[in-house]
Amino acid sequence: MPLTVAQRALVRFDGRGFVPAIVQQHDTGEVLMLAWMNEDALAETLERGETVFWSRSRGEAWHKGETSGNVQKVVEVVADCDGDTLLVRVDQRGRHGPGVACHTGARTCFQNPLEEP
Amino acid sequence: MPLTVAQRALVRFDGRGFVPAIVQQHDTGEVLMLAWMNEDALAETLERGETVFWSRSRGEAWHKGETSGNVQKVVEVVADCDGDTLLVRVDQRGRHGPGVACHTGARTCFQNPLEEP
Repeated sequence: MPLTVAQRALVRFDGRGFVPAIVQQHDTGEVLMLAWMNEDALAETLERGETVFWSRSRGEAWHKGETSGNVQKVVEVVADCDGDTLLVRVDQRGRHGPGVACHTGARTCFQNPLEEP
Repeated sequence: MPLTVAQRALVRFDGRGFVPAIVQQHDTGEVLMLAWMNEDALAETLERGETVFWSRSRGEAWHKGETSGNVQKVVEVVADCDGDTLLVRVDQRGRHGPGVACHTGARTCFQNPLEEP
């Protein structure tokens, strides 16, 4: 199902057709990861109720957690003021518990603080 | 002051020299905005302790809040697993109170939910 006119009007894809999507755990506020969507991935995310991204390196869509079981149930998708970024509030789940967002096995991809020199 | 070798090793700038920076209020977890940094903007952010971004549209650095007073005091900068996104935890302040991140006058730039059809 394509985006509605109202949905489409809120999002401004970049010159290559992509928009960055920040993924946040809806209740704790944890920022889990950032990935990219094209229009089809966004439409599929809304239709499925689980995140689907566009892998710019592999050049293909990926349904997050399809193989690992770490799916992200979509609570809400919110566009920013100029429509060039999405905030996707999710419930990050795993097959047997809360699950992890990161391919490293960590809950969130943000694990590497830039220490003060 | 340039980035240290240890800091530089954690960040992977894209082909044009940019990295997206997610800005989050450190205590409430609110995602306030996303903007872009190049290496100089990141170095200046760390040195100043306030966010400095690179405006891709204007082609210049901007010290967030310099004119509006809505500066973002940096608490922590964290790189993600593959170094191509930064999470900047801040205290969003204004001249006379908590301040706003968005040029629209809203606390956060994320105000436009994509309603279900």
